[in-house]
Amino acid sequence: MYTVKSTLPEQDLKIVGEALQGALVDLVDLSLVAKQVHWTVIGPRFRSIHLQLDEVVATARSYTDTIAERAAALGMAPDGRAATVASGTGITGVDSGWHKDDKAVDVMVGALAAVVNRMRERMVVTEEPDPVTQDIFIEMIAELEKHHWMFQAENKVDGHRG
Amino acid sequence: MYTVKSTLPEQDLKIVGEALQGALVDLVDLSLVAKQVHWTVIGPRFRSIHLQLDEVVATARSYTDTIAERAAALGMAPDGRAATVASGTGITGVDSGWHKDDKAVDVMVGALAAVVNRMRERMVVTEEPDPVTQDIFIEMIAELEKHHWMFQAENKVDGHRG
Amino acid sequence: MYTVKSTLPEQDLKIVGEALQGALVDLVDLSLVAKQVHWTVIGPRFRSIHLQLDEVVATARSYTDTIAERAAALGMAPDGRAATVASGTGITGVDSGWHKDDKAVDVMVGALAAVVNRMRERMVVTEEPDPVTQDIFIEMIAELEKHHWMFQAENKVDGHRG
Amino acid sequence: MYTVKSTLPEQDLKIVGEALQGALVDLVDLSLVAKQVHWTVIGPRFRSIHLQLDEVVATARSYTDTIAERAAALGMAPDGRAATVASGTGITGVDSGWHKDDKAVDVMVGALAAVVNRMRERMVVTEEPDPVTQDIFIEMIAELEKHHWMFQAENKVDGHRG
Amino acid sequence: MYTVKSTLPEQDLKIVGEALQGALVDLVDLSLVAKQVHWTVIGPRFRSIHLQLDEVVATARSYTDTIAERAAALGMAPDGRAATVASGTGITGVDSGWHKDDKAVDVMVGALAAVVNRMRERMVVTEEPDPVTQDIFIEMIAELEKHHWMFQAENKVDGHRG
Amino acid sequence: MYTVKSTLPEQDLKIVGEALQGALVDLVDLSLVAKQVHWTVIGPRFRSIHLQLDEVVATARSYTDTIAERAAALGMAPDGRAATVASGTGITGVDSGWHKDDKAVDVMVGALAAVVNRMRERMVVTEEPDPVTQDIFIEMIAELEKHHWMFQAENKVDGHRG
Amino acid sequence: MYTVKSTLPEQDLKIVGEALQGALVDLVDLSLVAKQVHWTVIGPRFRSIHLQLDEVVATARSYTDTIAERAAALGMAPDGRAATVASGTGITGVDSGWHKDDKAVDVMVGALAAVVNRMRERMVVTEEPDPVTQDIFIEMIAELEKHHWMFQAENKVDGHRG
Amino acid sequence: MYTVKSTLPEQDLKIVGEALQGALVDLVDLSLVAKQVHWTVIGPRFRSIHLQLDEVVATARSYTDTIAERAAALGMAPDGRAATVASGTGITGVDSGWHKDDKAVDVMVGALAAVVNRMRERMVVTEEPDPVTQDIFIEMIAELEKHHWMFQAENKVDGHRG
Amino acid sequence: MYTVKSTLPEQDLKIVGEALQGALVDLVDLSLVAKQVHWTVIGPRFRSIHLQLDEVVATARSYTDTIAERAAALGMAPDGRAATVASGTGITGVDSGWHKDDKAVDVMVGALAAVVNRMRERMVVTEEPDPVTQDIFIEMIAELEKHHWMFQAENKVDGHRG
Amino acid sequence: MYTVKSTLPEQDLKIVGEALQGALVDLVDLSLVAKQVHWTVIGPRFRSIHLQLDEVVATARSYTDTIAERAAALGMAPDGRAATVASGTGITGVDSGWHKDDKAVDVMVGALAAVVNRMRERMVVTEEPDPVTQDIFIEMIAELEKHHWMFQAENKVDGHRG
Amino acid sequence: MYTVKSTLPEQDLKIVGEALQGALVDLVDLSLVAKQVHWTVIGPRFRSIHLQLDEVVATARSYTDTIAERAAALGMAPDGRAATVASGTGITGVDSGWHKDDKAVDVMVGALAAVVNRMRERMVVTEEPDPVTQDIFIEMIAELEKHHWMFQAENKVDGHRG
Amino acid sequence: MYTVKSTLPEQDLKIVGEALQGALVDLVDLSLVAKQVHWTVIGPRFRSIHLQLDEVVATARSYTDTIAERAAALGMAPDGRAATVASGTGITGVDSGWHKDDKAVDVMVGALAAVVNRMRERMVVTEEPDPVTQDIFIEMIAELEKHHWMFQAENKVDGHRG
Repeated sequence: MYTVKSTLPEQDLKIVGEALQGALVDLVDLSLVAKQVHWTVIGPRFRSIHLQLDEVVATARSYTDTIAERAAALGMAPDGRAATVASGTGITGVDSGWHKDDKAVDVMVGALAAVVNRMRERMVVTEEPDPVTQDIFIEMIAELEKHHWMFQAENKVDGHRG
Repeated sequence: MYTVKSTLPEQDLKIVGEALQGALVDLVDLSLVAKQVHWTVIGPRFRSIHLQLDEVVATARSYTDTIAERAAALGMAPDGRAATVASGTGITGVDSGWHKDDKAVDVMVGALAAVVNRMRERMVVTEEPDPVTQDIFIEMIAELEKHHWMFQAENKVDGHRG
Repeated sequence: MYTVKSTLPEQDLKIVGEALQGALVDLVDLSLVAKQVHWTVIGPRFRSIHLQLDEVVATARSYTDTIAERAAALGMAPDGRAATVASGTGITGVDSGWHKDDKAVDVMVGALAAVVNRMRERMVVTEEPDPVTQDIFIEMIAELEKHHWMFQAENKVDGHRG
Repeated sequence: MYTVKSTLPEQDLKIVGEALQGALVDLVDLSLVAKQVHWTVIGPRFRSIHLQLDEVVATARSYTDTIAERAAALGMAPDGRAATVASGTGITGVDSGWHKDDKAVDVMVGALAAVVNRMRERMVVTEEPDPVTQDIFIEMIAELEKHHWMFQAENKVDGHRG
Repeated sequence: MYTVKSTLPEQDLKIVGEALQGALVDLVDLSLVAKQVHWTVIGPRFRSIHLQLDEVVATARSYTDTIAERAAALGMAPDGRAATVASGTGITGVDSGWHKDDKAVDVMVGALAAVVNRMRERMVVTEEPDPVTQDIFIEMIAELEKHHWMFQAENKVDGHRG
Repeated sequence: MYTVKSTLPEQDLKIVGEALQGALVDLVDLSLVAKQVHWTVIGPRFRSIHLQLDEVVATARSYTDTIAERAAALGMAPDGRAATVASGTGITGVDSGWHKDDKAVDVMVGALAAVVNRMRERMVVTEEPDPVTQDIFIEMIAELEKHHWMFQAENKVDGHRG
Repeated sequence: MYTVKSTLPEQDLKIVGEALQGALVDLVDLSLVAKQVHWTVIGPRFRSIHLQLDEVVATARSYTDTIAERAAALGMAPDGRAATVASGTGITGVDSGWHKDDKAVDVMVGALAAVVNRMRERMVVTEEPDPVTQDIFIEMIAELEKHHWMFQAENKVDGHRG
Repeated sequence: MYTVKSTLPEQDLKIVGEALQGALVDLVDLSLVAKQVHWTVIGPRFRSIHLQLDEVVATARSYTDTIAERAAALGMAPDGRAATVASGTGITGVDSGWHKDDKAVDVMVGALAAVVNRMRERMVVTEEPDPVTQDIFIEMIAELEKHHWMFQAENKVDGHRG
Repeated sequence: MYTVKSTLPEQDLKIVGEALQGALVDLVDLSLVAKQVHWTVIGPRFRSIHLQLDEVVATARSYTDTIAERAAALGMAPDGRAATVASGTGITGVDSGWHKDDKAVDVMVGALAAVVNRMRERMVVTEEPDPVTQDIFIEMIAELEKHHWMFQAENKVDGHRG
Repeated sequence: MYTVKSTLPEQDLKIVGEALQGALVDLVDLSLVAKQVHWTVIGPRFRSIHLQLDEVVATARSYTDTIAERAAALGMAPDGRAATVASGTGITGVDSGWHKDDKAVDVMVGALAAVVNRMRERMVVTEEPDPVTQDIFIEMIAELEKHHWMFQAENKVDGHRG
Repeated sequence: MYTVKSTLPEQDLKIVGEALQGALVDLVDLSLVAKQVHWTVIGPRFRSIHLQLDEVVATARSYTDTIAERAAALGMAPDGRAATVASGTGITGVDSGWHKDDKAVDVMVGALAAVVNRMRERMVVTEEPDPVTQDIFIEMIAELEKHHWMFQAENKVDGHRG
Repeated sequence: MYTVKSTLPEQDLKIVGEALQGALVDLVDLSLVAKQVHWTVIGPRFRSIHLQLDEVVATARSYTDTIAERAAALGMAPDGRAATVASGTGITGVDSGWHKDDKAVDVMVGALAAVVNRMRERMVVTEEPDPVTQDIFIEMIAELEKHHWMFQAENKVDGHRG
């Protein structure tokens, strides 16, 4: 038989495994959402946002792999299938059709804020059971918060946000 | 207002647009499925199949972009969101958990066969309304059938398949 | 004597040769027009459009070479001299002086639309006499329509256009 | 058992398979002939032709692989062995010993003309059964005719040729 | 309003602006002429001259951009449109149709001589009003005279030239 | 003892040395100011200006090194320390806190204008004593004026400026 | 309005923001000091130290950007202007004029020791409020201590130091 | 005298120094063992494992340098000599002679498990005295556990293991 | 007349020339055979062997050129045409159709053994007449024997072989 | 069974195998010793020697692989394990702790001299049984003697050496 | 006949031609002298100076080509043969045998000073007849004086120099 | 004292040293001669020969370094100064002034023949005393004879030569 034994005790693995599985779902969806807006943005800022979104895609895809392979390395089979992502993602409010540029920026501010929020919780719960996994969350949050800043910096905030 | 006018007449666009939207859904799912198996394959051929699957991912991601941007160029907003993909994909039978290597190869033979089959139909229906879109399907089928061959070449066929 | 014999019969060559010569003139002018606007655009979107235009130049220059060498390969000497271009181009309405950014985008939408339109006609007439030449038109149209989408996506359309 | 199932029906595969097998033989021989002349050319134009021939070799080797793997992808084992090539090639008239430079150019004009001619026939017969294979022939003919032009452009034509 | 203020006083700008506009026209035409001959040269030296001409194109295109952007930087909108080039160029005598190789070299010797001559005059008149612009002319002349030497070195001079 | 002997006579060195030291101070500050605005710009044009500013930083850092090492090569120890820069810079009016994008562009137009102005004076005074140093100023002014144009081209000028 | 909202609560942000602002000042000065010595070092070890210092500059510049953009990502506008650096830096004792090589090494040992010391304090205070920021300090200290070792390894220590 | 002063107090250095010295010995041996198996593996999976092992070598060599230089940076001379490695390594059971492929995989699973186990202990003991060193262990464990997973995934586990 | 004079006396050239011509034939065939198996291998080890064979092709093609140009450099026109290869090769037993993976490995062990054997004889006979040619054989044998080892290492030897 | 058959007769293999095994041990140790000194050198020449030693490491590691794989290619399993290296190496006198720079150079002169000496003996004994192996020794000696020169050139020789 | 006509009048060409021919001789010798010292330097600074000298060689070789081709471009055949260089060089005092490192630096300070001195004279005399040639001297002097500074910076000056 | 001890006994070193010194002189001159003709060739084949000569320069310069550093590695200071080269070279008959292209080729055939001839003698005499040095001659002769062939292949041989 072929099996991958965990280097963590079972109860630690349970906590870490849930954090990794949740992060995987959010990251796959972040990559799909960023591509969706990349294709459908219109308006005077089209080109700038179109390019900026591919940098979010690159970050999301890269950490998708890191997170899923970290789960595998700990002996847990990750699940990044479309249906799992569709039902478990923390990102909401991405409509079909074209996105006017200021709407596109607003959507990305919201999506990144939601993901950062959940990742910060995962960073906290993994500290004790596995500092190795936590360190991956820490580095990833730094990158996600950088994207978050950049979209905020070009986002006009109305009364109902921020 | 910002709008993208199509260079195709409306009824041609309808046919071509459906073909592109269907292809987009299949390609996003192919990229997710190939990554899913990439992370969960086990067995003596683990490393070879793990690497081979990332080449499928590269093809699928590259054509995902080409197809979605072709739709946009024709004035139609593509939809590659997770829920749309989960409900519309032509790929079936990818389970959660670990995949023994021969099972992994078998899954990919099936997934690629399903996608090629649907793409060949799209190649036929787009010939008249838009040879430019058809040419993209033609090139893509060449690449997908190459992956299909490679997984078949290493796939043991039992009585119930092939 | 040094001559380049055509692989096409004379009447086919006549049709194909006219299509190639016409395309060459349009492409040389597209490269000159895109550079002209690249140098003279002003306004808040200056930098983005300035960079975007060099990508049009790259496409136009690359296909200029492909098209002219295709003509030579079929035994017909192409003509891409300034006077030939000035009198034969399908692009109109590029003024001297500075271009405000929204005007610049509008000029490029118009120039690309005109070129795509003529290229689609050439794609049709070359299908029978030379599928090899037609295939070059097909690929080129895909690239030109992609540029066309991108400028449309950032172009505010008033009543008198679109 | 390991087998590669074709995506084409049997009678279509027969036509396409013959075209691919014939093309493979011509391309392997074109690569060998171009190398042969690359090594044995002499005369004032030695260096220029020596370098030019390696570009033909690069084209021939690249399409040799594309064509043979297209056959495999369709479920047909290609045959590119030396004896098969020696007996089936469409190229004739390459002598042993040194080649004076104008003779070398003449040999290549003849070899490329022969191969282009056969490839154009294959382009025609594969259109119906498999547009994917036909598209490969179309792209390849564009490259081969470009080489053909370049050797013609430097080839002095006497009464008995051209 | 968006305007580019010159760092030069008006009368200096007038001199420098004329020199830059004249240089732009010559350089655009040099790039078109070199490409024209690149496509239409025939004869035993075809390949060598074909390659050599693309190096002239590279020089001409690179300085076209430098010169036009220098004009813009000084607050003057440059004009590099086809009609402006066709009527203002200093290059003459480039016929349509094929160019036998020795004729092709002769054409380029003439074209480069004409351009160098006019650039040397521009180098002189810009020294006082703007050494920054003059320095660009100086560097460009070094490159153009290098191309001029290389075509002369392979050009058979009859009684009526040189 | 280790000393660097000047190739210039003492009184020439005095003039050239002052010009180089002044240029060094301005360039170090230009690099710090451009980074400052790079970090603090906000508004719809955030991303475009953020990227544009790093190109100014690259120019400023590159010439900082060239100028300081030119001074050393002439036997004069340059001084690029923070306090020297803070007290000697020709750039003014860069506030702390966030910069709205149009304000950011305006700040850079002003900073570049101030630096260009001082560099043009240095170009004049170094001509006689050291054409080698002058040539470095000439090339640098070309680059700085190019940046100056680009920020002006996207800068809305009100009554009180320009 | 355009604002960057912090993902940290206000009191945590105050601690983290002060640490980042302090680090920014030290890093900008480290880059200026290392360049200053890079230009003014003399003595038999000139070339080795001249090159070594550019590696310190590279580290300092890279972390300057990381730190300043981390502050921005947390909603705090960083301040890296020359006057702020001159008054707030932790580095002292860099004289004007030439630096004999052993003196140069000694200066760098001192500068790096001062910066490492302050960075270690920042690493401690940021642990609780923001592990993401702390992780940046941890990685940076590893690099700075590596430079510190290398200069110490080639530094002759007299009685009054170490 | 030339000495490297530690930034850590003596008792912290003692703990950290032992962890680093132990890690160095394990990593040098891991690189030697992976090479040993790289050269001596046989069996149907020879090529795949041969290549996979060089990736372990790359990881081991890279961290060998990082760890040894971290020790030096803290003022402690590391010891990576052959005899020190031979007597202190945590890896056992690597025989001379050829390794059948499944045995080779089993050896590497054991070697990596032993090293990971010891590194996790070092990660724990260094947390208090030096988070900078701990962070290096954390990153290294992530890489080692990834290799560990990959060999496990292709390793058939019998009753006596796992 | 254009001739290439040998630096070797005639009787030495005869020995060396025969060795080079024989080697050329074997190497061209080795490249064709390795490609043939590259295209037709099937079975669980398909991908690994498919990739491994392209490394043999690279070696064979590279030495084909080296050997043929060494012959030319010695004044002897080499002969690498298909018919010459088909009749003179030392490699036997490569069938048409698909190759099961263990059969494919066995074919390559046999082909490489045959070629190495003949190359070792050529190494011996060329030592006296031309150490320069012999040195090429020596280097080539090292590479061929390395490929030979790698295929043997993954080849199950039955009673009738080895 | 999987075995690697030698192309050498048994008694030749015995001689060649011993030479290769001895060389492997020396080269692994040379790489470890050079790294050891790389980490522990101190003194004014620290940086220069630190860098120089990594070039020795690169040479040693590269030939370690070449030599071990040559043994495998001849059918002999090489042994490069730590204990084998520790007991069989020809290098002596590398102490623990820091190495003052002149001592470090002296150690490397001695280590390289010892290795070169043994390699020259191996070059002699392998000439008859296997010129292919001998040629590897010849090339390696050229590289090792180049390193040997470079360390000698910077090594002060006292009475008791040289 | 093939001739290269000068763009300069005869008397101007005479002045410029002499300057270029003199510069060519000095530069060829500078490249030979720098290589000579590169090979023969010994002493504790061997490696640093050995590497530094190859940068002088790179500068000298690059300008050798620029200067010689400038002469050709002006219609004058340059002369860089060994005997011409040996008799005409401005560099003196390079002995055979080994060079102790401080002597090596001193030799290079002298050689570079001599060359810079003569180049500055050439810069002056070419200003009027050909600013294009003068500009090449200006750029070259900047590079040569940079090398001159670097060798001076590490050169101990006794009473009889400096 | 700094000295480089030879690994060869004195009488062997004498033979090898003379061979290396002679080779160095020939190679430096070959690089100067090839550059001389590179600059002064004229005629219809100018460009082809101009480029071909830079490949000879590259070979000559590369082996100049290899040979000189081999001498140094054996403890002998090489001498590659201009006067030594001018008096000791084996190349004759390179005139000043322009070289018509067929004359240029003839000069290079002669120069390469002379150098090859002397190198073959050096290959013979160094075999016994130092196979390591001989191997360098062997590889170099292969490259030089390749250049020799290429120039012969384009050289018209009259009665008085060859």
